[in-house]
Amino acid sequence: MSISKKMTAAAAGSSMVRKMFEEGAKMKAQYGGENVYDFSLGNPDVPPPPVLKETLLRLLEEDRPGLHGYMPNAGFPQVREKVAAFLSREQGQYLQNPFSANNVIMTVGAAGALNITLKAILDPGDEVITPKPYFMEYNFYADNFDGKLVPAESGEGFHLNIQAIAEKITPQTRAVLINSPHNPTGVVYQGEELAALGRLLTEASRKNGRIIYLLSDEPYRKLVYGGAFVPSVFPAYPYSVIGTSYSKDMSLPGERIGYAAVNPDMPDSGPLFEAMVMANRILGFVSAPSLAQLAVGELQGVSVDVGLYEERRDLMVEGLQKIGYELTVPGGAFYLFPKTPIADDAAFVDLLKAEKILTVPGRGFSAPGHFRICYCTPIQAIGKSMAGFARAFDKATGK
Amino acid sequence: MSISKKMTAAAAGSSMVRKMFEEGAKMKAQYGGENVYDFSLGNPDVPPPPVLKETLLRLLEEDRPGLHGYMPNAGFPQVREKVAAFLSREQGQYLQNPFSANNVIMTVGAAGALNITLKAILDPGDEVITPKPYFMEYNFYADNFDGKLVPAESGEGFHLNIQAIAEKITPQTRAVLINSPHNPTGVVYQGEELAALGRLLTEASRKNGRIIYLLSDEPYRKLVYGGAFVPSVFPAYPYSVIGTSYSKDMSLPGERIGYAAVNPDMPDSGPLFEAMVMANRILGFVSAPSLAQLAVGELQGVSVDVGLYEERRDLMVEGLQKIGYELTVPGGAFYLFPKTPIADDAAFVDLLKAEKILTVPGRGFSAPGHFRICYCTPIQAIGKSMAGFARAFDKATGK
Repeated sequence: MSISKKMTAAAAGSSMVRKMFEEGAKMKAQYGGENVYDFSLGNPDVPPPPVLKETLLRLLEEDRPGLHGYMPNAGFPQVREKVAAFLSREQGQYLQNPFSANNVIMTVGAAGALNITLKAILDPGDEVITPKPYFMEYNFYADNFDGKLVPAESGEGFHLNIQAIAEKITPQTRAVLINSPHNPTGVVYQGEELAALGRLLTEASRKNGRIIYLLSDEPYRKLVYGGAFVPSVFPAYPYSVIGTSYSKDMSLPGERIGYAAVNPDMPDSGPLFEAMVMANRILGFVSAPSLAQLAVGELQGVSVDVGLYEERRDLMVEGLQKIGYELTVPGGAFYLFPKTPIADDAAFVDLLKAEKILTVPGRGFSAPGHFRICYCTPIQAIGKSMAGFARAFDKATGK
Repeated sequence: MSISKKMTAAAAGSSMVRKMFEEGAKMKAQYGGENVYDFSLGNPDVPPPPVLKETLLRLLEEDRPGLHGYMPNAGFPQVREKVAAFLSREQGQYLQNPFSANNVIMTVGAAGALNITLKAILDPGDEVITPKPYFMEYNFYADNFDGKLVPAESGEGFHLNIQAIAEKITPQTRAVLINSPHNPTGVVYQGEELAALGRLLTEASRKNGRIIYLLSDEPYRKLVYGGAFVPSVFPAYPYSVIGTSYSKDMSLPGERIGYAAVNPDMPDSGPLFEAMVMANRILGFVSAPSLAQLAVGELQGVSVDVGLYEERRDLMVEGLQKIGYELTVPGGAFYLFPKTPIADDAAFVDLLKAEKILTVPGRGFSAPGHFRICYCTPIQAIGKSMAGFARAFDKATGK
């Protein structure tokens, strides 16, 4: 073979998603993009906050030396300080220590943040537990460093099932990876369940004689509805690291800008931090892009109009429930994860496709019997799509 | 341990460079930045071409939909087409096929390009041969995918030593990784030596029953002196891939923008290309930054004023030779790699440090008995540094 065994296997496993993407592109070419309801991809369509453009223009006009130059692998110190100050305000309330620049590494998106963290901690054979359903890329992220993703069942309404996680812990467990607000369900984990997870990991680390890290993937933290607050993992467990990005909350996923933050209350976190910075360098990221770094540094706390997503969620939830779909109302992110009215989620997604509605079968997230809707689509399209959702439901249930 | 075994070892191995960097920062704080001659880091100080700023401003003002959005993992198709067209003009003359968008993947710098290529081809234990001296990050890039870097001796004037490479080939050899213009020596490989390497790899691949790829790391291609042309690897060997970036030739290393290009004459290159695109996704890069991608797409063939580097090279070469340093005059890049007047290169670099001149010992490139000078420094500093270079030379040689 001309390519590595891992990539040969990966290419085979990922062909379903690629096939769907190709079919979607074909349908749009055939029927016109405006006649296909594409709820398949999490590509934010809400425009970035106007201040982003203003900030980028100003940085370019000022044209300070080093604007496009190398900086330390962890990122510009002044940007990391601004992120740290924001984190202290946002999530520092119950911590012993404030965040400092030495808790923050600017990264190539949240995917970069997760990969440098896993590179820093995983030895071959190490296990990373994640609750189902989950973003399938996590399998690759663990495998990149010869680790193994171990899915655990989730609880009622897709909340954490502490018992199920406990049962998956072995001497090889190196991390638990969670995501809140959650892709694909939109669930937001509450403080009490995070605290329970923290207690479990404290006890299991002690028993294993080795730290089990808690990694929290949080790109949707600011996309949360009804003024809710996403509880922080930091007070729940000292050995916690978050990976996040500005991709979703500032609608700039193409710019590849995010960060990893290490809990300031983590004992002896220096070697982990240094290893993550080094991983950022040697995996080939080197650093996060400079202009985007400087811009987001000045825009801490800025986000798109979340109300636009909330309106869409409300319209979609109401419409689908009226038809008869069973679903958990999501508290954040821009996903819905209804049950399919028939057990075979792939077959049901095909029924939707016949209505020119593109979604992703739950098996793509290790949760067959569901399907994922991403409402990164204009609200008019949501309204217009409801007739198709109804027809597919009727066909599936034989009405 | 709280971090992985690989990263523990990596951190230990990299402490020399970190120590030097820290010492340099301390010296600058103590004596003032203008009194320390920092020739240690390859951070381009020549300003980017003015058209870069104009292009970025225009793209922001136009503000087309998707400016900051996701695009295919390989990059914007229109950008890849522009790069392909440029490559066809620049290096297509002796090829059977023109470059197309399907030969080009936009990446997070050349480091990203090399890593996705190695991820696509390396199985555990596979070997990657590289000529000495070499950029030490290559060790990590191979190790990221459980491969092993195998250094081979170089020939006269740091040119390729085909015999030495041939002797390192085993059944585990998966790639030969070269770099021209070369860091740290500035040597430019000529067409005939590339052709000889191609013949060797054709024969060895046949004998091994498995392709040995030729990877060429080319971020300095446009930084070449006296109107010279850097011979292309593509006509020399069909199973070749280049990794490159705009970091050096457009002075924007912080923006993390480069690309990988697969030889259009490579037979059955589809699976390799697809694997590289997938590696770009699953390693966490996802894609190259969008705004920078769009900008460089419009600036094919644009580079900084290379004459500025050439003037510095000439001044530095003349000054050092007059003192008595032995060196090979570099044809490109912005490095000099003179012999140290005493065998112990670390000791000699310390003598230079006492003169407030920062350089890197050759052992940092697997070539003791030399030291690396990077002339990314104003020409005035080069002139002023010569007295210190002379004093260190005299001290070392006991004059």
